[in-house]
Amino acid sequence: MKIGIVGLGLIGGSLAIAFKKAGLEVIGVSRKDSTCQTALDRQIVAQAGTDLALMKTADVVFLCTPIDYVIDSAKAVIPHLKPDAILTDVASVKGEIVQAIAPLWPNFVGGHPMAGTAEQGINAALEDLFVDAPYVLTPIETTSQKTIATLQELIKHLQSRYYSCSPEVHDQSVAWISHLPVFVSASLIAACMSEEDPEILEMAQSLASSGFRDTSRVGGGNPELGLMMAQYNKDALRRSLYAYQQELEQIINKIEEENWEVIASSLNKTQSQRSRYI
Amino acid sequence: MKIGIVGLGLIGGSLAIAFKKAGLEVIGVSRKDSTCQTALDRQIVAQAGTDLALMKTADVVFLCTPIDYVIDSAKAVIPHLKPDAILTDVASVKGEIVQAIAPLWPNFVGGHPMAGTAEQGINAALEDLFVDAPYVLTPIETTSQKTIATLQELIKHLQSRYYSCSPEVHDQSVAWISHLPVFVSASLIAACMSEEDPEILEMAQSLASSGFRDTSRVGGGNPELGLMMAQYNKDALRRSLYAYQQELEQIINKIEEENWEVIASSLNKTQSQRSRYI
Repeated sequence: MKIGIVGLGLIGGSLAIAFKKAGLEVIGVSRKDSTCQTALDRQIVAQAGTDLALMKTADVVFLCTPIDYVIDSAKAVIPHLKPDAILTDVASVKGEIVQAIAPLWPNFVGGHPMAGTAEQGINAALEDLFVDAPYVLTPIETTSQKTIATLQELIKHLQSRYYSCSPEVHDQSVAWISHLPVFVSASLIAACMSEEDPEILEMAQSLASSGFRDTSRVGGGNPELGLMMAQYNKDALRRSLYAYQQELEQIINKIEEENWEVIASSLNKTQSQRSRYI
Repeated sequence: MKIGIVGLGLIGGSLAIAFKKAGLEVIGVSRKDSTCQTALDRQIVAQAGTDLALMKTADVVFLCTPIDYVIDSAKAVIPHLKPDAILTDVASVKGEIVQAIAPLWPNFVGGHPMAGTAEQGINAALEDLFVDAPYVLTPIETTSQKTIATLQELIKHLQSRYYSCSPEVHDQSVAWISHLPVFVSASLIAACMSEEDPEILEMAQSLASSGFRDTSRVGGGNPELGLMMAQYNKDALRRSLYAYQQELEQIINKIEEENWEVIASSLNKTQSQRSRYI
């Protein structure tokens, strides 16, 4: 089976390495000559170039361009594909993308390998990036079982944990566990920044330790990623944010009322529920 | 110098070990005979017993009982103290405690060694628990320089980072960086629990990874600690929670308005500000 990768960054490059290691032939396309050269030099791909026509022999094509280019990349590569080629992507939000690409190519299935590092680009690509990480496919009613089965086989090569759900269930799930935490955490840092007494602010900065460090981590992360979540998963994120706002208001009210019994009971619940996620 | 420790748990026990290692004589009092026996067996203390009269020869007495017993412990030990003995405590909230004890013993200074482990009790006590951790003293106008200097010397033996501020500055600072994160984080877990679609809930639990793990950690921690923060630091915590609520509302409004420029700019700010705390 011949694998095509469009976009040789961290994710595309890591997929290429893992598939090559599994004995598959991998062809890569990048906008930049220098990236193609690196992929060839590192022997990650059998062929690489900037021309999407390279994809004409591929059986399965992974669109690994940044989320705001995925739909355009699909439109650009589709004229070059074999009639029975499978097309998939790796973007972290699925609804809009599946809605836009599926009508153009019935053999398209949305995908989301949930892995990454702080580094980006092909030089950061790793053979084992996807090992034990979730890999979600988001088929729709018209997706054929054969297409899903082929992609499932490829995901096995990555040693990822395979999940399947609708694009909508995917987007709301990642809103809860990935996108909501970013805005919850960013608001914590923003709230601390709002302290106007310089002595308190300085003391808070001196005394901050692991609790603040962990709770503020994703809110102090890559701003472009946070923005992308808000832009591409707006509806699901809003739904999660409103639910969060309500929970926060309830706990504030209970503190106002000094209703310690209810606060103790809800802290007990959050303690026991957390273990279902971790 | 003779050190008295009232309450031989994790903090009291660890202070005893560190002071003994520094060559000081340490006397301990615990409510439980078995704890006294453990302290004697481990040779953490020179003398131990359940009678507060043991404190009559101590130069500096550390109250290390749980926060809801500190004021009562002070009242109980004061009749036994030498006239020039220094009294201090280790509770994580200072306002109420200093206000209650300072009028009873002018040589009282509030203190807060910011260290801990997941374990509790004397068996969890560690020699290096306070090394590199902040140790805050909260003197007031009537506190003598000599008293502060003596405690500072003792804190040096612990190799802690020494800070000094008013009880009010301390309580608002820890509200920002320690108590607010707990309720921000607990509300995240509570919000996820509110999802009523079982398929989304199950998928969210399957896909949760490091972002959710870190942001939810302190909200899924010891419920008694969270409750204690709300009870003993209510005013400062409320002030932080209201500021947080405002920041959250602002970011939600900007997402509603699709004002991506402002969201990008505030995520950039939180990213750069976080480094001042970490």
